[in-house]
Amino acid sequence: MTQNILINGLSEQSLPANDRGLAYGHGLFETIALNGSQPVAWQAHLARLKEGAARIAIPLPDNIDQLLEEDLSCLLAQQSSDRSSDKSSDISSEQDHSVQRQVLKITITRGCGGRGYAVDDTVSINRVVQLSAFPQYPDNPAENGIVVRLCRTSLALAPQLAGIKHLNRLEQVLARAEWHDVSIREGLVLDTEGFLVEGTMSNLFWSQGGVLYTPQLDRCGVNGIIRQRIISIASQHGIALHQGLFTPEVLLVADEVFVCNSIIGIWPVTGTVLPQNQRPEWLVGPITRMLQSQLSAEGIY
Amino acid sequence: MTQNILINGLSEQSLPANDRGLAYGHGLFETIALNGSQPVAWQAHLARLKEGAARIAIPLPDNIDQLLEEDLSCLLAQQSSDRSSDKSSDISSEQDHSVQRQVLKITITRGCGGRGYAVDDTVSINRVVQLSAFPQYPDNPAENGIVVRLCRTSLALAPQLAGIKHLNRLEQVLARAEWHDVSIREGLVLDTEGFLVEGTMSNLFWSQGGVLYTPQLDRCGVNGIIRQRIISIASQHGIALHQGLFTPEVLLVADEVFVCNSIIGIWPVTGTVLPQNQRPEWLVGPITRMLQSQLSAEGIY
Repeated sequence: MTQNILINGLSEQSLPANDRGLAYGHGLFETIALNGSQPVAWQAHLARLKEGAARIAIPLPDNIDQLLEEDLSCLLAQQSSDRSSDKSSDISSEQDHSVQRQVLKITITRGCGGRGYAVDDTVSINRVVQLSAFPQYPDNPAENGIVVRLCRTSLALAPQLAGIKHLNRLEQVLARAEWHDVSIREGLVLDTEGFLVEGTMSNLFWSQGGVLYTPQLDRCGVNGIIRQRIISIASQHGIALHQGLFTPEVLLVADEVFVCNSIIGIWPVTGTVLPQNQRPEWLVGPITRMLQSQLSAEGIY
Repeated sequence: MTQNILINGLSEQSLPANDRGLAYGHGLFETIALNGSQPVAWQAHLARLKEGAARIAIPLPDNIDQLLEEDLSCLLAQQSSDRSSDKSSDISSEQDHSVQRQVLKITITRGCGGRGYAVDDTVSINRVVQLSAFPQYPDNPAENGIVVRLCRTSLALAPQLAGIKHLNRLEQVLARAEWHDVSIREGLVLDTEGFLVEGTMSNLFWSQGGVLYTPQLDRCGVNGIIRQRIISIASQHGIALHQGLFTPEVLLVADEVFVCNSIIGIWPVTGTVLPQNQRPEWLVGPITRMLQSQLSAEGIY
C-alpha cells in the first residue's frame, strides 16, 4: 500500500496522545494543491506557516523548508516505487500519475508536552506531512457555480489569532455541521458583530460596479493563499479592491460573488439562502472569469 | 512499565494523525483529581462532558459513563498489578499507593475523519483516558497563597463555546506563554472587552464586604467543576455571590482573592501585578479558609 504520511520524516501513522496539537490545538496547518511533484504557491504557504508559527509561539527549525521538501520528495518517491510495483504486476492505471493532482497537507504542532498549558523550551515540534487524493467535482462548480448558505455559527473576534491557519477550528466545524443538503456547497460565516468574514473553508469576494470587495481579516478569519493571490492580480489589472467590514446585505446588490481556496481555486456563487428567505441569484461575470483564467495561467487552479 | 493510558479501551499510546481532535480541536477534555480509585466530583465532570458534547456535535455513546469507568478500572488494575511485581522484586514504595492521588484526564474527540470540516455520521468518537502523577507543590500554595499576573492575551467572545472544556485552547497557551517567572503561579485573563474572565488554568473569585464575586462565563471561559461547587457552598452558607462583568480594578478593593480548579483546589491570591505597576496585596481571609475547609470535608480538595 502506498505510504501517504510521514511524521517527523518517519513512516508513522499516529501521534502520541499527549501531542499539544491534540490537547490544545497548539499548531498550524497548510492545505496545498500538488501538481505532479510541484506544490502550488509553495513559497506563499511556507510564508503563512512561518508567520503563524511566530504568532503562536511555535519555534520552527531554521531548515523547515528543506525538511518539508524532503518529506514531500520521500512520499512522492514512495508513490512512484509503489506504482512501479503495480505495473510489474500488470495493474495499469488510466491516468498518468506523474502529472496528477493531489492534496498535500502539512501540520505542525508544538510537540509532546506534559499536562498544563506551559511548554518546556526543549520540547521539539511535531511535523506531519500527508498526501491525499484530489477531490473530484463532477458537476464542475468552477464552471457552473455553486449555491451557498448563510451560517448561524459566528466567528469570535480574536485579533491575536486572525489570519493564520491554526488548529483551533471548532467554529468552522460547527458552521459546516449546520447543513447536510448536498446541493449547498459552502456556508458563509459572519463575525459575532454581524459582519461578513469568509466561507467555512474558503474566502469570499464579490464585485459591484467593477470594484472587487472582500472582508478584512484582522479580527478573525483565515487569510487564504488564493485570496492573497487574487488581491495581487486585481492590483496588476487595475481593478479596485476594498477590504472592509460589510454586512451580508451587500451581497444583495453585488454583480458577481465567488469563494476561493487552494484546492477549489475559484467557485462562482450563483445563488444563496439569506435571512428573510431572500434568494438572490448572480450570473458568473467577467471579473470572476478573468481571475479564474489568471490563476489557471499561473498553474494555481 | 505502568500502562497509564487507554485509547478506546485499548493499550495504545497514540492517535491517528487524521483525528479530528488534532485537525480542528473537535473534542473535549476533563481533568479530574483521583483519590485512590475514586474520581472526585465524577458526576459533575461527566455532566459537563455531556453538555459540551451536545454543544459541539459530538455523539457520545449511551453507555459513556460505563465505558469511562471501565477504562479507569482497567488502568488502576494494571497499576496494582505492576506494584505487585515491584514488591515481589523487593522494590518497596514509601507511600501507600491505594490512597494516593493521581490526575485522571479524559479526552473525547469526534474521531478520525477525512480532509474537510464535514464529518460523516458513521464516524466513531475517540476516547482517551490517562493517569498521571499528581503535581507536588512543596511551597504549599493552598496554605500560603500565590502571586498572579494580569495577562495581555485576551479571550475572544464566543458564546457558542463558552463554559465548556473543548480542545480549542490556543488562547490559554498564549496567555501561559507570557511569563517564565516561577514565582508567578497563575495569570489572570480578560476578555477582548477588558472584563475579568478567569485564570489561564483556573477560575477566579474575590470577596468584598462579605460578598463573593466571580466573572460570568456566558461569553467565554471554562465553567470549572470547583467553581460550580463553590457557588453551591456559598449558597448553602448564606454567602451572597454575584456573577457579572467586572474590570480588573475591582481587585484593588477586594478583601480576599482566590483561584480554583479540580487539581489545585483553592489557592488564595496574596499578590498580583496589575497595570500601572499597582501591586495590591491581600491577606488570606475567612471566606477563603471556610471554602477550603468545605471542599476538604467533601474530599474534593
